[in-house]
Amino acid sequence: MPAFERLFNPRGIAVIGASADPTRAGGQTIDALTRHGFQGGVYPINPKYDEIGGYRCYPALEALDQPCDIVVIALPAAHVTEMVEQCGACRIPYAVVLGGGFRETGPEGEAREKAMVAAARAGGVRLIGPNCLGLVNVERKVYAAFGSLTREPDLQPGPVSAVIQSGGFGNSLVIRCALAGVGFRQVVASGNEADISAAELIDAYVDDPGTKIILTYLEGITDGRRFVAAARRALSAGKPIIAWKAGNTRQGTRAAASHTANLTGDYDVFRAAFRQCGVIEVHDVDEAADFALCLMSGRRPKGRNVAVMGGSGGSAVVFADTADEVGLSLAQPCAQTMAVLRANLPSVASLENPIDYAAGYPRPGDEPKLQRALDAVLADDNIHQLGLLYATVLGGTLKLSASILAEAAARSDKPVLAFSVMPHALAPEGHDILKAAGIPSLPSPARVARAMGMLADYAEALARQNNPEAVPPAPSASGLELPPGAVTLDEHESKIIAAHFGVPVTRDVVIPVDRVGEAVSGLRFPVAAKVLSRDIAHKTDIGAVKLGVRDNEQLTAIAAELLANATKARPDAKVTGVLACEMVTDALETIVGVVNDPAFGPVVALGIGGIFAESMRDVTFRLAPFGLDTAREMIGELRGRKLFEAARGKPARDTDALAQTLSRVSVMAWTLRERIAEVDINPLLVREAGAGVVAADALVVLR
Amino acid sequence: MPAFERLFNPRGIAVIGASADPTRAGGQTIDALTRHGFQGGVYPINPKYDEIGGYRCYPALEALDQPCDIVVIALPAAHVTEMVEQCGACRIPYAVVLGGGFRETGPEGEAREKAMVAAARAGGVRLIGPNCLGLVNVERKVYAAFGSLTREPDLQPGPVSAVIQSGGFGNSLVIRCALAGVGFRQVVASGNEADISAAELIDAYVDDPGTKIILTYLEGITDGRRFVAAARRALSAGKPIIAWKAGNTRQGTRAAASHTANLTGDYDVFRAAFRQCGVIEVHDVDEAADFALCLMSGRRPKGRNVAVMGGSGGSAVVFADTADEVGLSLAQPCAQTMAVLRANLPSVASLENPIDYAAGYPRPGDEPKLQRALDAVLADDNIHQLGLLYATVLGGTLKLSASILAEAAARSDKPVLAFSVMPHALAPEGHDILKAAGIPSLPSPARVARAMGMLADYAEALARQNNPEAVPPAPSASGLELPPGAVTLDEHESKIIAAHFGVPVTRDVVIPVDRVGEAVSGLRFPVAAKVLSRDIAHKTDIGAVKLGVRDNEQLTAIAAELLANATKARPDAKVTGVLACEMVTDALETIVGVVNDPAFGPVVALGIGGIFAESMRDVTFRLAPFGLDTAREMIGELRGRKLFEAARGKPARDTDALAQTLSRVSVMAWTLRERIAEVDINPLLVREAGAGVVAADALVVLR
Repeated sequence: MPAFERLFNPRGIAVIGASADPTRAGGQTIDALTRHGFQGGVYPINPKYDEIGGYRCYPALEALDQPCDIVVIALPAAHVTEMVEQCGACRIPYAVVLGGGFRETGPEGEAREKAMVAAARAGGVRLIGPNCLGLVNVERKVYAAFGSLTREPDLQPGPVSAVIQSGGFGNSLVIRCALAGVGFRQVVASGNEADISAAELIDAYVDDPGTKIILTYLEGITDGRRFVAAARRALSAGKPIIAWKAGNTRQGTRAAASHTANLTGDYDVFRAAFRQCGVIEVHDVDEAADFALCLMSGRRPKGRNVAVMGGSGGSAVVFADTADEVGLSLAQPCAQTMAVLRANLPSVASLENPIDYAAGYPRPGDEPKLQRALDAVLADDNIHQLGLLYATVLGGTLKLSASILAEAAARSDKPVLAFSVMPHALAPEGHDILKAAGIPSLPSPARVARAMGMLADYAEALARQNNPEAVPPAPSASGLELPPGAVTLDEHESKIIAAHFGVPVTRDVVIPVDRVGEAVSGLRFPVAAKVLSRDIAHKTDIGAVKLGVRDNEQLTAIAAELLANATKARPDAKVTGVLACEMVTDALETIVGVVNDPAFGPVVALGIGGIFAESMRDVTFRLAPFGLDTAREMIGELRGRKLFEAARGKPARDTDALAQTLSRVSVMAWTLRERIAEVDINPLLVREAGAGVVAADALVVLR
Repeated sequence: MPAFERLFNPRGIAVIGASADPTRAGGQTIDALTRHGFQGGVYPINPKYDEIGGYRCYPALEALDQPCDIVVIALPAAHVTEMVEQCGACRIPYAVVLGGGFRETGPEGEAREKAMVAAARAGGVRLIGPNCLGLVNVERKVYAAFGSLTREPDLQPGPVSAVIQSGGFGNSLVIRCALAGVGFRQVVASGNEADISAAELIDAYVDDPGTKIILTYLEGITDGRRFVAAARRALSAGKPIIAWKAGNTRQGTRAAASHTANLTGDYDVFRAAFRQCGVIEVHDVDEAADFALCLMSGRRPKGRNVAVMGGSGGSAVVFADTADEVGLSLAQPCAQTMAVLRANLPSVASLENPIDYAAGYPRPGDEPKLQRALDAVLADDNIHQLGLLYATVLGGTLKLSASILAEAAARSDKPVLAFSVMPHALAPEGHDILKAAGIPSLPSPARVARAMGMLADYAEALARQNNPEAVPPAPSASGLELPPGAVTLDEHESKIIAAHFGVPVTRDVVIPVDRVGEAVSGLRFPVAAKVLSRDIAHKTDIGAVKLGVRDNEQLTAIAAELLANATKARPDAKVTGVLACEMVTDALETIVGVVNDPAFGPVVALGIGGIFAESMRDVTFRLAPFGLDTAREMIGELRGRKLFEAARGKPARDTDALAQTLSRVSVMAWTLRERIAEVDINPLLVREAGAGVVAADALVVLR
């Protein structure tokens, strides 16, 4: 049986705290099940009544003698754990805990939540909530829910399953999608996620044959890697995930902290995860609705070329502006297509893409010609999506245009979208034709372009998934010994670890404290001399670094001086010696880092180095481990990516070596994820093409 | 009489090319005037008919014996000039030319347009169009228009006047605003703007007492400074301009070029002009509708602090995210307000801003308490705007909330906005109460935050306008001689001009060609040596620059070498000598430029210098001339603005001197606008605070 089968298709639903009062949560659940016509059993549990809402009322759960798969618990927090225990005793697999008063309220509530979860584990009961609106299966009329999830507008059945971490706002998102014409399958408001998480539900949706699209509103997740695994499975199954991650800014994070108990996962890390798993990110309700509508057709473009056609030149200008922003090309149709357009569209038409057939077209009688023009554009291999810009067209003209477009679209497998500013009420016939043909009509050309950009992005994510990059294997662990405990390693120790994983490092010589004063051999001067100490992470600040040391004689003197500086500034620090590192000049400075996110685990960061770029926070992130394709994407995402190109007499940089090193760092981060808290390779010097990269400094923090 | 009084309130409208066929433009005009009930005279002109649509038909304009202020010309382009001449002969002040076939079609059309304009000028006729949908005065039912401008939905009268450069798309924008509840006054689709331009119409709207808000869709303008003057007048009058500039990207510009004939003005320059004149820029139809709705109340916030209240925590999180992006603060209410909230809101409420009174509130009986809470927040001097996040609330709860909010809002002059995802049909009573109270209800918390951000921005623009910055006077022109003609000046000549306007320049000594080899006096070494030639703008590329020249001896040798290099690389160039410039080190490189935009005139650009920042195109623009406030804004807009702050042992930079120099460059650009084509001060070196700035190189291109 698929995961959560009995949760989404329960044979019966019991409601503890059932009431005839529709202002109470338990009353709303009973009312919703009645009103929507749930076909399974409805079992109010309340010792005070014999009957509620026409249903036989049971004094306690144990008195229930009918098959029941969900217990909705609508009681104050203090009584919930006991009820969860009863669920376990009655072998009921799912409980939906509506009320608050748990982790979100402070330490006392947190203890209450822990006790409830323990009771659930002990009794084999899985929990939705607490502090949630519950869940709905639209087709089966399952309303194990209360509040706005049970009220108007009624959702229509469809292919979208949702999990929302805020009831009120998440449901606003669902409602706005529904008003735009999106049909729903399951909607779960997951609340505190004390047990069943958004990631687990998404994973279950992937296996649900009726779910074709997944929608989620997230404020934070604790099981990031589980989310990633579910999202990757969704991508493999061709089921797009539309995700809104909120609580990302200074003020937003503060607001989320006081709202949910889910605050985990840095937004940069979420974005990296979304990018790597083909998750479609949205930032407003209408964007989510547009995207859901446009994904419903199941059509996926084969590239980033689009054509637009219509009678409103201004709409085409606005479309083109947005197309540029989202990386779509208004490609030139092929010669054959151009010939068909020339032969069939009005003589005043502008045939270059955007194709502007001028206002007032088509008129009755133009059908065969417009049909040929549309067929030609849709058959053109150089065009991957088509947008019709109807703008203000209505009445018979829209009806005529829409009919011909619907027929042409049916003969093609390419995405077809429309822009119409007219609401359904003003042009019902035309809009109904578009809707029946599965052609989304959006109210601005910019939104059409953004939706097409999303379809192209998603198709690219699918293609990447079908042709996955190789992640290099981890090197043998032999020879690599990490000290125990949460320690910050010194530069030399850090570089040894990095080098073990294939990260090129500068040639270094360690001069132990007791040999400072002796000449070193095998070094190519100039060198940088640095005090070696696990206790001194920021060496420059205390005069413990000297660059450009010319020869052994100078090195001897400077090493002693650096040691003196270090001892003076940090008398407590344990200093092991001085490190002499061969210097590399004329290379581009980058910064490569690793952070171990509490939710998502190890994440690799790449930034341009130096004060200029750092001041602009030009950094990109990916979850470890990854291969060369991902590493190249990272380089390409930097605003300062042009710095890697040849310019002004400077050579192009070795981005191949940089990509390889990023991938190796990611393997290091993943392999040592149980130990590594943080890595900072700063700078990683990128030399000219062919000359490689080299880490001039490194810092590994163990945990 | 105000400008265009007879255009917007014509006593009679004649239609040349009138027809009973509603598929023809002239037929649509007659039909629209009839249907909407225009109260003035309607005069079809057509020699073939005696009567059209119930109106007496005149064989020719000269046969018309009634007062007539507008002639709508619905004839093919070839006949239009003759008709415009007839308008002049009949002393009719305005002609609206609907049809295309003019400048937008190529050289022949351009000639036709010129002839038409000449005829209009000769006859004292002002023109709307050609290639346009015409104009509408909603209240007076003036429909000198055809196409979508005459069709459903009927516009409702209101305070917004619009000028749109694309009929079809611009009218989509108008319609979308109308559907959101925005009322209109004048709507002009201005087409090719052969005579009357968007800028001129905006200027007229400023003087129209009934117009409170101006909406415009622009693809380009030729009279940028006129637009700026009109926009400044609008700001003085407190009439916000909502502007959408399209055709800004590579593909968008290409699409606009094939669509209108208005392609002038770089987008960067438009944005600078918008910023300087308090024009509110929008990028999508719903954003325009939201902003128009929110501006209609006339309430302007006194600062950037906002409060939000509601029962949906997730909505508050989303609001807070967007508030952060647009620079709004969710400020802490004052102690007194907090006390009122604590005493009146439910005990489970979270009183910190966002104020979350939890779902299900208010219930009947809560009115007096909620009233006190709302009054307290609206009376709090630390809160400048209030947003109510209703999310999915409907029915009696929304009605109750809305009534109390409406009363509280009436006692305050602060902007009050609401978020409700429910359409009017599902919660008519609540929405009607909000509408009657002038409280805009938007369907996403992000949109509420963006609208509030816009109101705060606009209020700041009003404040700037009320307290204008001083623009420094131009220095006396005596002593400044510019060579005639379009020449590129050499570095020394360029620096003399800059210095004349108060721009600090490096100490330079010119060594004429015939004195190269002699020692120079009064120079502080090291110096940069550069070949001086009007013909060599890019000196470095051909080895005509040497930095770090240590002394006179080295200078003598290097000067000769540089001259040899220059002669070899550019034998045609006229070389006048070698320039020795004292070098400044350890300063932050910036780039200051001037471009002379064909539409907007001189514009000053500021960017961070060096290859890093240049690769990120970190540049900001302002129209010249301007004072210190504007200059400081420019510095603050750079992504790399942190580079001016003290960090890592580097001192803070002299931003005061930078601002002063920017202002002086702007005065130079404005004063010499008839001659300057371009200025490039690269680098302008910004030294540590107190030490000033200095131009190390300069290039002035005259025209």
